[in-house]
Amino acid sequence: MLYEINEKALKLESEGKKIIRLNIGDPDLATPNEIIEAAYAAMKKGKTKYSSSYGELSLREKLAEIHGVSADNVVITAGSKWGIFATMYLMLRNGGNVIIPTPYWTAYELTAKTLGAQTKLLRTELDDKWRIDLDKLENLIDKETRMIILNNPNNPTSKVMDPDVLDGIVGIANRKGVTILSDEVYGTIAFVKTKSILEYGDNHILSNGFSKTFTMTGWRIGYIIANKEFVDQLTRLNQITINNVPVFTQEAALKALELQGQLSNAIKEEYQKRAKMASEILKTVLEFTEPEAPFYVFPRKRGLDSERFTLDLLDKGVAVAPGTAFGDYREHFRISLTAPRAEIEAGLDKICEALE
Amino acid sequence: MLYEINEKALKLESEGKKIIRLNIGDPDLATPNEIIEAAYAAMKKGKTKYSSSYGELSLREKLAEIHGVSADNVVITAGSKWGIFATMYLMLRNGGNVIIPTPYWTAYELTAKTLGAQTKLLRTELDDKWRIDLDKLENLIDKETRMIILNNPNNPTSKVMDPDVLDGIVGIANRKGVTILSDEVYGTIAFVKTKSILEYGDNHILSNGFSKTFTMTGWRIGYIIANKEFVDQLTRLNQITINNVPVFTQEAALKALELQGQLSNAIKEEYQKRAKMASEILKTVLEFTEPEAPFYVFPRKRGLDSERFTLDLLDKGVAVAPGTAFGDYREHFRISLTAPRAEIEAGLDKICEALE
Repeated sequence: MLYEINEKALKLESEGKKIIRLNIGDPDLATPNEIIEAAYAAMKKGKTKYSSSYGELSLREKLAEIHGVSADNVVITAGSKWGIFATMYLMLRNGGNVIIPTPYWTAYELTAKTLGAQTKLLRTELDDKWRIDLDKLENLIDKETRMIILNNPNNPTSKVMDPDVLDGIVGIANRKGVTILSDEVYGTIAFVKTKSILEYGDNHILSNGFSKTFTMTGWRIGYIIANKEFVDQLTRLNQITINNVPVFTQEAALKALELQGQLSNAIKEEYQKRAKMASEILKTVLEFTEPEAPFYVFPRKRGLDSERFTLDLLDKGVAVAPGTAFGDYREHFRISLTAPRAEIEAGLDKICEALE
Repeated sequence: MLYEINEKALKLESEGKKIIRLNIGDPDLATPNEIIEAAYAAMKKGKTKYSSSYGELSLREKLAEIHGVSADNVVITAGSKWGIFATMYLMLRNGGNVIIPTPYWTAYELTAKTLGAQTKLLRTELDDKWRIDLDKLENLIDKETRMIILNNPNNPTSKVMDPDVLDGIVGIANRKGVTILSDEVYGTIAFVKTKSILEYGDNHILSNGFSKTFTMTGWRIGYIIANKEFVDQLTRLNQITINNVPVFTQEAALKALELQGQLSNAIKEEYQKRAKMASEILKTVLEFTEPEAPFYVFPRKRGLDSERFTLDLLDKGVAVAPGTAFGDYREHFRISLTAPRAEIEAGLDKICEALE
């Protein structure tokens, strides 16, 4: 229902209705001007042609340096969503199942279903602070299990995984020969240190992107880091699908990385302020864990039917996402803190009002 | 071998070697400046965010007007290659076979194979002027046939389909209940009138793009026109894969369409001159049909091993594509007239020399 709500919100807006959009992880902040200028300069230099399906070597080398891998381990994707679809496609097209902890980012399960793969959901709970139970994970794995998808920091809970739990998960995965796809798209701007899957060698796969760190959501550029064999495989899929990410977009992304310290700290600070404000407003009426990463709060109200609540709230001019879009979490809903602070405040007030 | 040759040519170039690149359909002409400026203006206006997986309504409406359909029938894709992959994925993921006339654009068969679909190749011959035999087509169709892929004008032959033959193909497809995917990406700038699949109602699917008409290859924007149900289905696939084409790219494409008469006529004229020149040079040593559309000549030399020839020629500084990349055409190779005229001339001279 996540996409339906979004298309409905877009439609209401196109009809001239004012909607406070707290439903998707698309920051209100503008793409920094230096990044736009880098894209424009590249276009004018004629960087508007087909190029390698691996991505530009300069960008791959820069990412390799940042992540401590070789450029051979990096492939540029048309958004991290495409990287995740492509990875799941390559690993699941011949059958098998995938383990997905919940609450999850909607696209993981939709993708698995589209691919005809069986999903095994591993439920986590607010009352356990969203901690993954290692015994439950181990019991879920069977001979058909091809992959485990982690989202660290998590969307929708904004929880960063405890390093000990991650150690445990990787240990189980290695013992059972199951590949982990770790989506760490919120990692760079998390409020607490996030341990990366890359710290465990090249058996597993990292997905990352530029959207969240540099407010480049609409540009559609991300990357996958994996062993060379998998990178080659994904590149062959790129060759018959997206072909390449525009070179001018890749040059913009390279500029973003060069300015990373400066840009992403400012972005992180702004989100920390928003998260603090949201926690203050919501804590009197809702239960939740405080965000350890930008963008989301995933509160619960006992007895809530969040689908009905979400539709009613949209009619009142505030878009949020129902908990059911992230698994079996009918009493939860997700608020994206991706609007100017004053607007978020107005939105949160309307939410509190609607819950009374 | 098409992509391998291209990656090898790119590698040689990155090592500083001069390669005359007549191997891919990527025009040497620059993207017109008005299009670049439209993208830049949109970026500066903040059109850098997530947007509808259908594409922008303004662009869909403009395309609908051009093609005489409704905006509901149009979905914007991340390049026409993505539109074709997505269409084949949706139609073939549950099995079945696809009929592909040869010579074909490499990606059709690679995609079918990747999807695990059976391909039924329908051979056409230079000696028949690449005409599709309707009886052969009818005999190839069985209960498992899900689609026929037409490429009109054709890559690599640059032949435009005879309207009577197209009438015949559509008649057979309609009688047998098989969907045609018609890739008409060279249609707008063909040298002779090209009859579109849209003239036969909305049972069938049109794929088109901006790459060739507006020298926007690296921008990755195309579109699919189909009945609303299929457009909705493809949009749901967009939602979990590419998400959206950047809005600034869509605004650039809209600008391109506004300038279409002016821009595409100039582009077409240039390619007609090149095609004429190439025909003059090649006709003494090779057999081929004269191009009716931009970019390609697909000549034959009896007894040629085009794979060996292509690799040897690359070492001599000219990249072309072996005939085997387009089906079972070992005696053919494809020349892309996508370099400045002087460079094409030098390349063609080297080709003639190598063939002696």
